[in-house]
Amino acid sequence: MSEIRKHYFLDEHCIIATGRAKRPSAPKACGEESRSASCVFCKGHEGETPLANAVYKNGEILKDIDEQRITDWDVRCIPNLYPALSPEAPEVEHATFEVKKGYGFHEVIIENPLHESRLHLSSDEEILLLMKVYRDRVMHYQSQKEIKYVSLFKNWGKKAGASLEHTHTQLIAVPIMPSSIIRERKAMEELESCPYCKIVEKEKGKERQIYENDDFILIAPYFSKVPYETWILPKQHVNHISAFSDEMLLSLGDCIRTAVSFLDRTIPELAYNYMFFQIEHDLGYHFNIRISPVTSIAAGFEKNTDIYINSMPPEIATQHLLEKV
Amino acid sequence: MSEIRKHYFLDEHCIIATGRAKRPSAPKACGEESRSASCVFCKGHEGETPLANAVYKNGEILKDIDEQRITDWDVRCIPNLYPALSPEAPEVEHATFEVKKGYGFHEVIIENPLHESRLHLSSDEEILLLMKVYRDRVMHYQSQKEIKYVSLFKNWGKKAGASLEHTHTQLIAVPIMPSSIIRERKAMEELESCPYCKIVEKEKGKERQIYENDDFILIAPYFSKVPYETWILPKQHVNHISAFSDEMLLSLGDCIRTAVSFLDRTIPELAYNYMFFQIEHDLGYHFNIRISPVTSIAAGFEKNTDIYINSMPPEIATQHLLEKV
Ligand SMILES: Nc1ncnc2c1ncn2[C@@H]1O[C@H](COP(=O)(O)OP(=O)(O)O[C@H]2O[C@H](CO)[C@@H](O)[C@H](O)[C@H]2O)[C@@H](O)[C@H]1O
Ligand SMILES: Nc1ncnc2c1ncn2[C@@H]1O[C@H](COP(=O)(O)OP(=O)(O)O[C@H]2O[C@H](CO)[C@@H](O)[C@H](O)[C@H]2O)[C@@H](O)[C@H]1O
Repeated sequence: MSEIRKHYFLDEHCIIATGRAKRPSAPKACGEESRSASCVFCKGHEGETPLANAVYKNGEILKDIDEQRITDWDVRCIPNLYPALSPEAPEVEHATFEVKKGYGFHEVIIENPLHESRLHLSSDEEILLLMKVYRDRVMHYQSQKEIKYVSLFKNWGKKAGASLEHTHTQLIAVPIMPSSIIRERKAMEELESCPYCKIVEKEKGKERQIYENDDFILIAPYFSKVPYETWILPKQHVNHISAFSDEMLLSLGDCIRTAVSFLDRTIPELAYNYMFFQIEHDLGYHFNIRISPVTSIAAGFEKNTDIYINSMPPEIATQHLLEKV
Repeated sequence: MSEIRKHYFLDEHCIIATGRAKRPSAPKACGEESRSASCVFCKGHEGETPLANAVYKNGEILKDIDEQRITDWDVRCIPNLYPALSPEAPEVEHATFEVKKGYGFHEVIIENPLHESRLHLSSDEEILLLMKVYRDRVMHYQSQKEIKYVSLFKNWGKKAGASLEHTHTQLIAVPIMPSSIIRERKAMEELESCPYCKIVEKEKGKERQIYENDDFILIAPYFSKVPYETWILPKQHVNHISAFSDEMLLSLGDCIRTAVSFLDRTIPELAYNYMFFQIEHDLGYHFNIRISPVTSIAAGFEKNTDIYINSMPPEIATQHLLEKV
C-alpha cells in the first residue's frame, strides 16, 4: 500500500511505498555469482512473475489472453510485483498534512528473454521492436484515467540502482504532473522559441556532438551534471513518442544503442540510467532522452544546493566516447 | 581550473571541476584495509595537506600563523587540495553559452585528530567546539566578496560519497545563490507565516518526533524522500547559525550527536550526508539541517520526475530509531 505525500509547503511529492522494501536485490558487488539460473525475468520463469500485460513476438503484439504465460516471446511487459503505485490503491487520509492515495501503474518491460543479452548489441529488428513497445506502453498508460505523466526509464547496473540484472526497462504512470517537468515547461513558455530546437541548432556538428542520424543528435550537453552525461534530441520539434513514425522509432533505437555502446566501451563496469522526457498533448514540449552514467555519488553539496560538481568536462567526455583520445 | 556553467535555459548551474578527478579515494567496500596509517587527515600528517586556514585547541582558535602546521590540535580547517572552486580562479569565456569563472572557497574541517573518532561519541566539549568552528567558518566565508551562499555539509561513508574516511565536514562558498534555495524562499514568501515554524508546531511531541532539547526538535519528516531521513529544526524562528548563542550551539551539537547516534545503532554500516540550510541577512528564512542516510539509490524514476520512492514510512523509521520496535 502506497501514499503520495506532498511536501509541507513546496509543490513536491514523494511516494511512501512500504511494500517496495521486500523486493529482491541483485548480487552484491563483490564475489557473488550471477543469478541467471534463478532469474525471474528469464525465459522459462514466466510463472514467477504476475501475468503479463502484453507480450511481443516477431515484431507484433500477441492478442490472445493465453499468451500471458507463453515462454516463446521477444519482449514481455509485466506488472511490477512490488509496485510503487497500483490501480487498486485504497483511499488514504491524513489529519494534518496533504496526501493522495498511491494510485498509478508500475510495469516492467523485459527487453529480451536471454539473461546475457545486452541492449547495445541489439539488431535493428530488436531495437525497433523495443521502441515500438515503448511507444505502445506509454500510450496505453497515458490514456488511463487520472494519469498525468508516464515515466519511462531504464536502470542498468547495481551502482545505478538496478535491483535485478536482467536487461529491462520500467514504466511508472503517476496521477500528478512532476513539479520538475512543470517548472521546465514554464521556463520554456517564457522564451520566444523552443530552447531545445536552439540546442540542436547550436550543438549540431560541434565539439560536443557524439553521433547523429537522420532524425536525432546525441550530445554531451554543455551543462552536464555528471561525467559522460549524454542527451538524445530529435532534430525536428516533436513533443512525444506517440508522434513518432516507425522510421523515427528505428532512428531513436539506433541512437540509444550507439550511446550505450560508446559508454560501454569507455566506462569500466558501466552503470547508467536513461529517462524519457516528453509531454503528451503539449505540442510546445520537445521530446528528449537523458542518459546518466553513474561514476560518482551526489553527496552533501549537491543535496544542499542542487549544484552538481562534475570532474569530467563534456568536451573531453565526447573525445573519450569517440575514442579520439 | 573550474567553471560554473549555466543550464541552456533553466536557472540551474553545475561546476565543471576537472582537477577533482585526481583526488584520492577511500578504500573499496570489500577486502581493503583501513588507510589510517597513511591518512592525510590524521594527527602527524599535517605536512600532507595545504597550510591550515584555522586551527582550534582547547576550545579556542589559535592566532599565530606558525600554528598552521602544529600537530597538537583539536579541529583543523584546511583548504581542500582538490577544490571545486578557488579564490584565484582565472576568468573564463564561452562563445555560445553562459559561464562564470570557478571563483569560491572549498575548505575541509577535520573534526578530530584521531582516525577512529566518531561524531556521535563526542563529548559536550568536543561537540560545542565543532559547532563553534562551524559558526566561525561559515561567517568567515559569508563575508568574502561576491560570495552568495556558504554550503556546509558532511559526508560519512563511501555509499554517501565520502572519498576519505577520517571524520570531516566540508564547506563550499559559492558566488551564486542556489536555485533550489531561491525557489524554497519564494514559496515561503507567498505564505502568511513561516512554514517551518508551522512544522515545529505540528510535529513537536507527535509521532514523528525523535528527540527534543531546549532549542531544537529532531523529526522524521512527514515528507521523507529516503528511509530514515531526519530534520533538525530550531523551535524559535532563527535564520542562520551566526545568530546562535553558545548555549544554542551546544543544543544544536547535542541534537546532531543524538541523531547520528540513533542512526548508527539502527542502520548497519551507516552512511549519510547532512546539510545546513540557512540564509544570512534574510530574517525570513528558518535555519534547518537535513540528514539523509544512504540506504538506497536514486535511479531512473527519481531522475525523471524528482519524485522519490521511499520504502520506509517516517512514522515507522521513528519507532526504529527510538528502538520501540
Ligand atoms: N518476480 C517479479 N515479478 C515482477 N517484478 C519483479 C519481480 N521481482 C522483482 N521485480 C521488480 O523488478 C524491478 C527491477 O527494477 P530495477 O532493477 O530497475 O530497480 P528497482 O525498481 O528495484 O529500484 C531502482 O529504481 C527505483 C526507481 O527509480 C528507485 O526508487 C530505487 O531506489 C532503485 O534501486 C523492481 O522494481 C522489482 O520490484
Ligand atoms: N591531502 C589533502 N589535503 C586537503 N584536502 C584533501 C587532501 N586529500 C583529499 N582531500 C579532499 O578531502 C575531501 C574529502 O571529502 P569527502 O570525503 O567528504 O568527499 P568528496 O569531496 O571527495 O566527494 C563527495 O562530495 C562531493 C560534494 O558533495 C561530491 O561532488 C562527490 O561526488 C562526493 O563523492 C575531498 O574533497 C578531497 O578533495
